Amino acid sequence: MIYFDHAASTPMDDGALQLLCTNLKNDFANPAAKHKLGLSLNKKIDSARAQILEIFGLKNFDVIFTSSATEANNTVIKNYSSKDKILFSLSDHPSVTATCEGSYSLKSNEDFIEKINEETELVVLTLVNAQNGQICKVQEIAQAIKDKHPKIKIHLDAAQAAFKIKFDFDTNLIDSICIASHKIGGPKGISALFIKKNLKLKPLLCGGGHELGLRSSTPSSPLIESMLLACFNAKNNFDKNYNNALIIKNFIKTELIKLHKNISFPFEEDSHLSLSPYILCMQFLGISSDIILRHLEMKDIYISSTTACSSKMSGYNPILEGLGISESRHKNILRISFGFVSTKQEAEEFIGQFKQLLKEISFLVK
Amino acid sequence: MIYFDHAASTPMDDGALQLLCTNLKNDFANPAAKHKLGLSLNKKIDSARAQILEIFGLKNFDVIFTSSATEANNTVIKNYSSKDKILFSLSDHPSVTATCEGSYSLKSNEDFIEKINEETELVVLTLVNAQNGQICKVQEIAQAIKDKHPKIKIHLDAAQAAFKIKFDFDTNLIDSICIASHKIGGPKGISALFIKKNLKLKPLLCGGGHELGLRSSTPSSPLIESMLLACFNAKNNFDKNYNNALIIKNFIKTELIKLHKNISFPFEEDSHLSLSPYILCMQFLGISSDIILRHLEMKDIYISSTTACSSKMSGYNPILEGLGISESRHKNILRISFGFVSTKQEAEEFIGQFKQLLKEISFLVK
Repeated sequence: MIYFDHAASTPMDDGALQLLCTNLKNDFANPAAKHKLGLSLNKKIDSARAQILEIFGLKNFDVIFTSSATEANNTVIKNYSSKDKILFSLSDHPSVTATCEGSYSLKSNEDFIEKINEETELVVLTLVNAQNGQICKVQEIAQAIKDKHPKIKIHLDAAQAAFKIKFDFDTNLIDSICIASHKIGGPKGISALFIKKNLKLKPLLCGGGHELGLRSSTPSSPLIESMLLACFNAKNNFDKNYNNALIIKNFIKTELIKLHKNISFPFEEDSHLSLSPYILCMQFLGISSDIILRHLEMKDIYISSTTACSSKMSGYNPILEGLGISESRHKNILRISFGFVSTKQEAEEFIGQFKQLLKEISFLVK
Repeated sequence: MIYFDHAASTPMDDGALQLLCTNLKNDFANPAAKHKLGLSLNKKIDSARAQILEIFGLKNFDVIFTSSATEANNTVIKNYSSKDKILFSLSDHPSVTATCEGSYSLKSNEDFIEKINEETELVVLTLVNAQNGQICKVQEIAQAIKDKHPKIKIHLDAAQAAFKIKFDFDTNLIDSICIASHKIGGPKGISALFIKKNLKLKPLLCGGGHELGLRSSTPSSPLIESMLLACFNAKNNFDKNYNNALIIKNFIKTELIKLHKNISFPFEEDSHLSLSPYILCMQFLGISSDIILRHLEMKDIYISSTTACSSKMSGYNPILEGLGISESRHKNILRISFGFVSTKQEAEEFIGQFKQLLKEISFLVK
């Protein structure tokens, strides 16, 4: 099997998996219980809070653990849900675009500075786009927004960015940041929302007042500590992983383009864009991505056409429109995405299999 | 260690734990991905959906998997959040009472039929109260509500009830039901919300449109299948577990009352109440429950005074007020709760240790 759909979800880090299974057995008490068993789990969670803030270098932030990045995005955005008070991009993840529905949407991050006005309360930025790996110019945009209207809050969706690219911007410009555990080797069912200390938010989930009063629900210390270890390992291996992904991406790009004249990489040649090495967006004119995906699958190779959360759409895809891809080409887009465990050997095998696939299906290419 | 705080959280079922750890390793793909790996996980989730509905015997219901019972309660209640349109009990779980804040609250389930009116949209019933194990007369109340105002929706919080008591009411009278995985041997971070097929709800978490469009977030098939197995095992062992809990509860009740004249069980003698065998609410006049808890803890014995989600409160506890306990006695209340794994031997040891404890602290009893 060759799995190049890591942007959708990636296997768990070995250590994070092992820790999770041990803790699931032992740490069964309720962290909100007042007795020693509960208090010790609560202490573990508070310690995880401090450690994850340190891993991300986020001073002046708090963190709450949510069940997903979707929940984190919803938690922030639903605090500002009046129409026309939120600016976001059409190319953001559905958990942003569906939640902001009715608010003003924009095609590219760069328009933000022009579009904000006195009425704007929140701007949502996506640090790494899930479709094409495009890196948002956070420093430039956030600084310009804060210079013009310091009261505007900025939420950063870093689900595809955490431990994939460096956060080379002043985090003080940002008011909240979310990550996704299952994109970085942690388990599904847990994620983190970083909240600047002076940001006032109302909880989305009300009840016992867990997570600093901002997210009620019995917390799962095993899921939290497992995600924490995945973060720790991803941070420690950042350079190694980054270079590995870059080598694989460049190899696949260079080799694929030789295989067929209709293959191109619409974003890779754009000198205005910085791109993540973990995502490669490919265009194959004259053949539907569905055919490619089906034939690759028969060879036990898994890539995708768009984000998993947009996979119910067929034909038109607003994310692709937001990235400036004309609708007639949406059906020709493929996404190949790499993980920390991806290898050059897999990449070589992928190219070999793709060559074979072209022999089989080239008669279908119009 | 003697752990009698199972109503707060209970150890994972061995099979459910083993299955979870296996699936966490293997089932890493995104269930929303369109390829075979995603589709196969999606199929597992849909199969779990069908199976859990069957386990609960819920025809004409759908089910969505949420991160917690709190999220399930919030999802339903926030669809009806106008003041005075919801009726609930002061003795409900904080995820109900905090979410309904501002709505009309009542002291006992029995008042519901009188209090509903043309304006009422939703009634929340708690099947088994988390503090005293009191079983709500669902059939009687729900039938009377539907007879009077058929349009009123009824949400049932069954977090403490699932696999602890029989659902001996017509489930067609109920519009939504929630359970809590970690109270029945499943993992934390997952739960289920059963929704009658004709009930229209808006999602709390918006995004990719997972879970029948009612709960966006990448689903965790490992957590879902683990909870399912815990449900399956709990259902299969229902009678054995029920009788075991009943034996333990009756033994502890009978023995404790012999130990000190100030010990009583305020709800056990009330012939109007049906009670769960898994929860024993005890009153010890003349000494604060905190002292008892601390001394038991030193003997490695863990019980609680109230629900874990209310544990931040000290002194006055609205749940106890809702159950008719006068405020001056809130500090004297203890909750001893049993799980599927509790044993008679533990109960005997508990009584032995409690006897010892009384020798040590009886001078403190006023």
